[in-house]
Amino acid sequence: MESRTGQTFVHCISVSWGDCDPAKIAYTGRLPTFALDAINAWWESVLEGDGWFQMELDRNVGTPFVRLEMDFKKPVTPRHKLMCHVWPVRLGNTSITFRVDGLQNEQLCFSTRTVSVCTVADTFEKQAIPQDIREAVKPHIPPEQ
Amino acid sequence: MESRTGQTFVHCISVSWGDCDPAKIAYTGRLPTFALDAINAWWESVLEGDGWFQMELDRNVGTPFVRLEMDFKKPVTPRHKLMCHVWPVRLGNTSITFRVDGLQNEQLCFSTRTVSVCTVADTFEKQAIPQDIREAVKPHIPPEQ
Amino acid sequence: MESRTGQTFVHCISVSWGDCDPAKIAYTGRLPTFALDAINAWWESVLEGDGWFQMELDRNVGTPFVRLEMDFKKPVTPRHKLMCHVWPVRLGNTSITFRVDGLQNEQLCFSTRTVSVCTVADTFEKQAIPQDIREAVKPHIPPEQ
Amino acid sequence: MESRTGQTFVHCISVSWGDCDPAKIAYTGRLPTFALDAINAWWESVLEGDGWFQMELDRNVGTPFVRLEMDFKKPVTPRHKLMCHVWPVRLGNTSITFRVDGLQNEQLCFSTRTVSVCTVADTFEKQAIPQDIREAVKPHIPPEQ
Repeated sequence: MESRTGQTFVHCISVSWGDCDPAKIAYTGRLPTFALDAINAWWESVLEGDGWFQMELDRNVGTPFVRLEMDFKKPVTPRHKLMCHVWPVRLGNTSITFRVDGLQNEQLCFSTRTVSVCTVADTFEKQAIPQDIREAVKPHIPPEQ
Repeated sequence: MESRTGQTFVHCISVSWGDCDPAKIAYTGRLPTFALDAINAWWESVLEGDGWFQMELDRNVGTPFVRLEMDFKKPVTPRHKLMCHVWPVRLGNTSITFRVDGLQNEQLCFSTRTVSVCTVADTFEKQAIPQDIREAVKPHIPPEQ
Repeated sequence: MESRTGQTFVHCISVSWGDCDPAKIAYTGRLPTFALDAINAWWESVLEGDGWFQMELDRNVGTPFVRLEMDFKKPVTPRHKLMCHVWPVRLGNTSITFRVDGLQNEQLCFSTRTVSVCTVADTFEKQAIPQDIREAVKPHIPPEQ
Repeated sequence: MESRTGQTFVHCISVSWGDCDPAKIAYTGRLPTFALDAINAWWESVLEGDGWFQMELDRNVGTPFVRLEMDFKKPVTPRHKLMCHVWPVRLGNTSITFRVDGLQNEQLCFSTRTVSVCTVADTFEKQAIPQDIREAVKPHIPPEQ
């Protein structure tokens, strides 16, 4: 997966008792949700507070996921905050690719890569990413090598 | 339920897309979890960072719930932060009673009342609340009327 | 709470690893969700397959909860199926009250009591329970003592 | 991903209201959980009722995930049962690879591929897959091409 370079947006998650399974670590099924929460927080940071809820309801824009990949490197526990680094790595005409690295105590716990497509929310039809969203995202896309 | 008086501990929750159901409000099944998260955060604030995870694993103390009551007053949405006010209302020999009020935009969304008993975590046996925990909780218990 | 009498609808839940917390029992926050799932299944059984999803989207009828009470009697574990007995105990003009008992291995794990009000789904306005739903529910309401 | 061939184990999931987000489809964060539930059910079918809970607690064997990939093809809704086809595709010395296809109304909704490693549950140390588990799994592994 693409490496983290420079400064990235960080979303901090408090992992707790209810996130953990009898192995005393966060249940695997919770980890994709943590990564998604982090991506939603990234959108909020870039679109003046608008996450998926506002994008869908106020802007009629959906960004459903078509792909999710996760490598699990170390268990996530309630012992430390989970720092989720989020950065977009590719902005297509109708799609956007994110990377999310989850770290605890400065050690990598999981790496995530997602691909979403842009839709008209109320019809589910694919659309080009609207210009204002494209402009807001573009500065965060790493330059082509 | 007992009213909130004076200053209470507040746990702030970011409600998001994934918490909501097709009615565009947080799913009822999520609300007890929010209240529990708030109680866990209260413990962390009172026990120097120790929530249920550390209480169970490091102190061998469990506080399983025996009772949960919730009144749902207004829908919870991602439009505002969910401010969960938590305060203990009764400290028995082996039990503790909490109230949690969830507010958004200064309006009451739900009221919660829970009762937990104290156990030896690894045996599930009821025990008197350990003295150090009792001392930490006591200052937060409202005086008898 | 009202006792279970005669034959009730039973919804069977497979509790698993991911439902459990480090105490090796189902996390308290999961139990209200189990009770809600059981009530949804009850609706499906009474309304020819229509649960909350179809009630809201196809019938424009909402039944949001205004009250939830649960007594937790015994831990829920993956060792046995969780048999959720659901029965309505009161049918008002605009409200319906349910009881849900969760049993494992024939022992009571939790007792639930909920109150829902009937709304027009797309406006959230309270409404009298529609006649066809009332007719479907009525035979299940216990006779007044 | 590897194609489904012949007869596979099928785990049936009832998707409901609480699984759905305001787009009226199952929330993306729920789908990995559905795939995991299906894999757990596969283990139960192969190990005489033992899922992850019993494997960890009774056999001291863990199978934590190190990799998860999902392609989302079609939205999952409560309109149809979600039929999760599960089959192992590779059995290594210390690892096992699963595929899970989720179908509704005979159409593919998502494809999943996971890799788990085998551990001694109480120490988290990697171990060779125990012989009895290996024997139970082997007949389900497709022959090398």
